[in-house]
Amino acid sequence: MRNHQIPKDHPRYLSLTIRESIINGMHNKVVAEAGLIAHGRGEAFDYILGEETPPFALKQERLAVLNLLEAKHPIISVNGNVAALCPNDIVRFSKIVNAPLEINLFYRSKEREDAIKEVLLKAGADHLLGIDPDYQEIIKELSHSRRIVDSRGIASSDCVFVPLEDGDRTLALRKLGKSVITIDLNPLSRTSLAASVTITNNIIRAVPEMIKFVEEYRACSHDSITNQLMKLNNKALLQESLKFMADRLILLSREEKLFNLS
Amino acid sequence: MRNHQIPKDHPRYLSLTIRESIINGMHNKVVAEAGLIAHGRGEAFDYILGEETPPFALKQERLAVLNLLEAKHPIISVNGNVAALCPNDIVRFSKIVNAPLEINLFYRSKEREDAIKEVLLKAGADHLLGIDPDYQEIIKELSHSRRIVDSRGIASSDCVFVPLEDGDRTLALRKLGKSVITIDLNPLSRTSLAASVTITNNIIRAVPEMIKFVEEYRACSHDSITNQLMKLNNKALLQESLKFMADRLILLSREEKLFNLS
Repeated sequence: MRNHQIPKDHPRYLSLTIRESIINGMHNKVVAEAGLIAHGRGEAFDYILGEETPPFALKQERLAVLNLLEAKHPIISVNGNVAALCPNDIVRFSKIVNAPLEINLFYRSKEREDAIKEVLLKAGADHLLGIDPDYQEIIKELSHSRRIVDSRGIASSDCVFVPLEDGDRTLALRKLGKSVITIDLNPLSRTSLAASVTITNNIIRAVPEMIKFVEEYRACSHDSITNQLMKLNNKALLQESLKFMADRLILLSREEKLFNLS
Repeated sequence: MRNHQIPKDHPRYLSLTIRESIINGMHNKVVAEAGLIAHGRGEAFDYILGEETPPFALKQERLAVLNLLEAKHPIISVNGNVAALCPNDIVRFSKIVNAPLEINLFYRSKEREDAIKEVLLKAGADHLLGIDPDYQEIIKELSHSRRIVDSRGIASSDCVFVPLEDGDRTLALRKLGKSVITIDLNPLSRTSLAASVTITNNIIRAVPEMIKFVEEYRACSHDSITNQLMKLNNKALLQESLKFMADRLILLSREEKLFNLS
């Protein structure tokens, strides 16, 4: 475990701490090298968002939760970055929405699978799909190891929650007729554009918020909310996120104090 | 050397090839782990720019070149990402503007210094500053190994070209009264905001363009251009870059074909 001793009063404390989790994840073989670069892309978009959950993202999260609650066989696909960033939250979310966790990697190796399995078990996961060769099934549309899914998991599910996913895989899952929910800070990524529901937010904030929404919907009748939300469409919400980012950039360009650093 | 065999007709070929250079750079000890995340942040902003040089960046590049040509002791500070991304161009640029190269690292180690030295010598560098302990000088404003500079280089220069630099160091150099020129795709980074001239562009495109500007200015009198350009101010150009990015996001949000992926 590295410890760069980031001072708690550092203006970038949270962002630097999360960055350390990802770098530690690479050291522990949980995160692939390309996962570090992907994390950097996320950092940039999150910075533009203002590093807090914007109003449109709450709508995206509610829509995602309702879709998962209404699915027959929901499944959560976990990769290295998800396991490194929020293992406890993703395990907790999996339990309260009754959606099993499937380890599904872009850069697959036994070593990485084992490392991710260890992280998720430590975070309280009971059972993990995606790692038993007896249940491997193939998505023909994809090449190499990326095509392998679990017959009890992604293969037979109607709704897949795949945070931080690759565009080709998102598209392949959609072509198989599945509902795909993702979290991706880049509203223009192929994943964001291809998903049924895209959450344009930092996964660190999104999953805890989604847990609260599940509890809220479980606690009381939500037919009217459901009807209202189910009308929202992913394209319109993505456009709202782009507009929000554009407005933020303009706002920042007018902040005099920003330009008085030197 | 990894070889993921990125097909040349892949829509993201150039971006993926550059990404491979950075990952190879980490394997060869040239690039620090945090350098991968920083590269990802750059990718995101470059994507927003449209992955081509925008008009305002050409102005920033011209202004940077004029500042370097008019400096008494210009110096170029090179870190791991610069060495991994454009070793040949940075060596060529150093020669035509008569500005020596100084290896100056945020995460300094003998191993990384040697790896970067090797890359730059292979790219044709004759002489490198920043690696001879006999000439180490200290910037008091900075902590740890980040404070070490070369007495023949950064310490005595009036104008430092530091592409892809850290914010604290940029600020420290400015406080020492030096003119600081940087390349940084994030117009809101502390480096961008603190520099005397910020180039909001991908270094891969910026340095070759700057080489052409040097040749142009060397070939003919440029007094009128100089006078005109020297009036440009960094803040206004950064604001122009933010406005450009905001406009691009709005434009993209209206591109129907983008949303017809699935």
